[in-house]
Amino acid sequence: MKVRNILGERFKERAFDIESQNLMTRGGYMKQVGNGIYSLFMPAKRIQNKIEAILREEMDAIDGQEVLFPVVMPATLWQSSGRFDSIGKELLRFKDRSGADMVLGMTHEEAAVQMAMNVAGTYQKYPFMIYQIQTKFRDEPRARGGLIRVREFTMKDGYSFHTSQEDLDRYYERAFRAYERIYARAGVPEVIAVKSDSGMMGGKVSHEFMLLADIGEDSIVICPECGMRANMEACEAITENVPDDELLPLTEVYTGEAKTIEEVAGFLKTAADKTCKAIVYQRNEDDSYVLIFCRGDREINETKLTNYLKAKIHPAVDIENANLAAGNIGPVGLETNATVLFDRSLVGATNLVCGANKAEYHMTGFNPSRDLPEGTKFIDLTKAVEGGICPVCGKHSLSVKNGIEVGNIFQLGRRYTEAMGMTYDDENGARINPIMGCYGIGVGRLIASVCEARHDDYGPIWPITIAPWQVEICALRVNDEAVKAAADKLYSELEKAGIEVLYDDRPVSAGFMFSDADLFGAPIRVVISPKTISRGCFELSARDKSFGYDIEIDSAAEAVCSKVRELIEAVNAKVPERL
Amino acid sequence: MKVRNILGERFKERAFDIESQNLMTRGGYMKQVGNGIYSLFMPAKRIQNKIEAILREEMDAIDGQEVLFPVVMPATLWQSSGRFDSIGKELLRFKDRSGADMVLGMTHEEAAVQMAMNVAGTYQKYPFMIYQIQTKFRDEPRARGGLIRVREFTMKDGYSFHTSQEDLDRYYERAFRAYERIYARAGVPEVIAVKSDSGMMGGKVSHEFMLLADIGEDSIVICPECGMRANMEACEAITENVPDDELLPLTEVYTGEAKTIEEVAGFLKTAADKTCKAIVYQRNEDDSYVLIFCRGDREINETKLTNYLKAKIHPAVDIENANLAAGNIGPVGLETNATVLFDRSLVGATNLVCGANKAEYHMTGFNPSRDLPEGTKFIDLTKAVEGGICPVCGKHSLSVKNGIEVGNIFQLGRRYTEAMGMTYDDENGARINPIMGCYGIGVGRLIASVCEARHDDYGPIWPITIAPWQVEICALRVNDEAVKAAADKLYSELEKAGIEVLYDDRPVSAGFMFSDADLFGAPIRVVISPKTISRGCFELSARDKSFGYDIEIDSAAEAVCSKVRELIEAVNAKVPERL
Repeated sequence: MKVRNILGERFKERAFDIESQNLMTRGGYMKQVGNGIYSLFMPAKRIQNKIEAILREEMDAIDGQEVLFPVVMPATLWQSSGRFDSIGKELLRFKDRSGADMVLGMTHEEAAVQMAMNVAGTYQKYPFMIYQIQTKFRDEPRARGGLIRVREFTMKDGYSFHTSQEDLDRYYERAFRAYERIYARAGVPEVIAVKSDSGMMGGKVSHEFMLLADIGEDSIVICPECGMRANMEACEAITENVPDDELLPLTEVYTGEAKTIEEVAGFLKTAADKTCKAIVYQRNEDDSYVLIFCRGDREINETKLTNYLKAKIHPAVDIENANLAAGNIGPVGLETNATVLFDRSLVGATNLVCGANKAEYHMTGFNPSRDLPEGTKFIDLTKAVEGGICPVCGKHSLSVKNGIEVGNIFQLGRRYTEAMGMTYDDENGARINPIMGCYGIGVGRLIASVCEARHDDYGPIWPITIAPWQVEICALRVNDEAVKAAADKLYSELEKAGIEVLYDDRPVSAGFMFSDADLFGAPIRVVISPKTISRGCFELSARDKSFGYDIEIDSAAEAVCSKVRELIEAVNAKVPERL
Repeated sequence: MKVRNILGERFKERAFDIESQNLMTRGGYMKQVGNGIYSLFMPAKRIQNKIEAILREEMDAIDGQEVLFPVVMPATLWQSSGRFDSIGKELLRFKDRSGADMVLGMTHEEAAVQMAMNVAGTYQKYPFMIYQIQTKFRDEPRARGGLIRVREFTMKDGYSFHTSQEDLDRYYERAFRAYERIYARAGVPEVIAVKSDSGMMGGKVSHEFMLLADIGEDSIVICPECGMRANMEACEAITENVPDDELLPLTEVYTGEAKTIEEVAGFLKTAADKTCKAIVYQRNEDDSYVLIFCRGDREINETKLTNYLKAKIHPAVDIENANLAAGNIGPVGLETNATVLFDRSLVGATNLVCGANKAEYHMTGFNPSRDLPEGTKFIDLTKAVEGGICPVCGKHSLSVKNGIEVGNIFQLGRRYTEAMGMTYDDENGARINPIMGCYGIGVGRLIASVCEARHDDYGPIWPITIAPWQVEICALRVNDEAVKAAADKLYSELEKAGIEVLYDDRPVSAGFMFSDADLFGAPIRVVISPKTISRGCFELSARDKSFGYDIEIDSAAEAVCSKVRELIEAVNAKVPERL
């Protein structure tokens, strides 16, 4: 492909704060069509096709059968699982010309069950996995970061069906390994798997695959000591309290306008971990109140709270009706209609400051073991913290990082097959609901994430296995006949050798050409100019500057091919074996 | 792939009248999810992937750049071309969570212009062609025939941009040839191109690619003498009238209840071609009337009428307000507020029967040349007929066939670039709207059409270039160790050789296995049984029964590979050269 023929423009001006969005916009990879909706130009589509090819190979290798589900589905299908009502506005609902309710697919569990229903009626047909690569739409309220969080996206989603938990476990392991292979093959072997909360998908065991990146929206808790990795939402929080020798008496103290933990601790000249904090939520359903007490330096993990309550919640908007003294709420002498919960971070804590349930007053000397009724239940409702205790190895080793979720796998259990009434006959003729697993990867987000992880100030540095082009030939001064002839010859030789070559033979300055080449991000560059030709060579260099040397003109094609092979092998060397 | 592992069931019961729908449903290729909405099982997706690969190769070969436009688009984009208002309910409109008007893409002219806008601002960037393979949605009122006419479908749509009509003409020729190559490579070289009406797409020159088939919804007019081919909607109708020697006087005659042409001609014992028929339409816009007179044996071509009137029309529902005597309308002495048009079929006709504009009476001796006012305009408004006169060679040679439209190409002109304000600077710095062409193929409809053209009573007979599997191994009596070992070995050898093999090693009867194999439609079949092994051979046969012979066990893999190559070469032999 010649640069001069590619539709798209590249420019220098910084366009966005998030680097992948900035560079992929500046590089002519994509154009916004609407909020969270993009068109992809040729270079991006080439990356997408390569990733899709990797996805197909890895899914086929774990016995996946590629199928195709529709984007537009009748609402009845989603009603049959109950999700038509339980999912919020991110499920886009509309009516067709006949007035029938329809939805745009944001995931395809229901479609997978509908496909398998009635054609997998006996145990001999199991296990099987079906997958598709298809456009999805999720009406995100906050699209951001270019392809990182969009409304319309291409996704590979797979659904496996099993007759036993053991069989699902075995398959889940194979899928897990396939995912590790996919990221390694895409050039980001550093993607890690973390335990996650299954959320609206149902089921219990699940993992998210995370690429660590400052712009990531997910918090991941990692233990470098034992290798534990979990999404913040799914990580047990362990808090160590070293008890004071003497338990002080409960004493009311004037704290005036001090209301936040910082203000109160500052006013009383104590530390946040010697305070007891009150946080109020409301259930979405009926606005009823939920009051949680935890140690003052801890934060509520809303996912844990939601799971515990089995109800969706939101931070309390207005606590007037709860008979609570905002900023002065305390666990002692409290009278409220709210559900009151105590977090585990209070276990073993002594001599804390807490609210006195009246304006301008707090209490000192709050000792949960002494001052709370016997039998008070302490629940894990807070977030793990940097430097905190690892729930697996027990060391003070936790590290909290930001990550971009680039894939997830779930054990769904019988959530969908039960709801939709899909069954098979087992060996004894009993009708059983099969157990499901599901396996998703968003293609566009993976592209943007690789860009986020592999770029410099000048553009993306695409791994050779997914780069739009493996090699770019920069012919400087093409009006020089020797340059033009040499570059044309190399271009044609490389194309014949099956190398994906981008060829820039525009009559532009070296600086202009190189800054475009940086944005195209081909991992290997060959520069041909009157100067190199006079030296009897071309310049071969790496987009990531890891190498750079002259190659002889006569054997140039061979040298480039061998470098391409070398880079591909370097990527493959990091790909784990299939299970 | 082993048959036992494929999700899907095959059955014998006739499911639908249209053969492709019947066989692809019985064969486990697809399942309906909603009205005109299907999921595709693995065999169908494999065909789709192969067709998509052919499409990519052919589009890339004519310098197409693969891109991706969104399925969901903001209404503003469609408003910018005017089509948001001009297209009917087949454009599915809805609101997103923020209340913004959105549409589901049924075609992507607007998206293509939006992509190219501002990045093709100078003449040097032209020509270029961008294409995508993407899901589309068209809210068809009458989905039918399985994948023949659906609401959701995968389509390859391309858009080219040019600075001159000559350049578009040149490119259009190349695209035309690419289309011929695509159909030939897909195994249906008999697809023909016909001139078509451009309809809502705008523009003038356009072609539809048609696969002749009785179930086709399109009428195609073909001249075997000169090769003229046109869609009925776009075919000029020529009617020859041999004048009588004597012009009879206009005479009112009693015809009683006779109203239709058949009844009147029967009552007066004359032929339909000696009558003058009146047909009444109404404009959709204001229900105003349009009255057309044509020869009694001709039918109105509503597309020609729409194009002539530049207004959408429908058959008149109620002609009371038009002051017309239904069944007795005639051109002489007519008083009406309708627009009155005369078809060319009346030119030269003599002594016709026509309505007398009063109940129970017609007239004889109507002679248009004598009885109509001087200067009366005769317009081409009727359909060409079987045996009619070819508008190109003038012979009485026309043949009318049914066809399925499997693709179309249009010269769009400046319709979209003008409306949306896309310009480039020409050599003199003048701002010009580029000229566009567009090029579409529906993938699912092509699959169904190939099935329609290539099947027998027992299943599809897939051309080897798009068959889900090239070869099926049927191992009869796999409990026989020799059979199992021989079949396993051949399966593994063929897979290693890169042949796409389906392997049936289920312990089922020969009849059951063969009827499944007929539905899978692999062009080559190898049967291995105790009987063949005792003869020292396997049986190699064609799905279409064109060959069938024994092959030696030791060289079986080689024999199969060579037959696969032979069939591929036979398909390729019918593929025309690229332009």
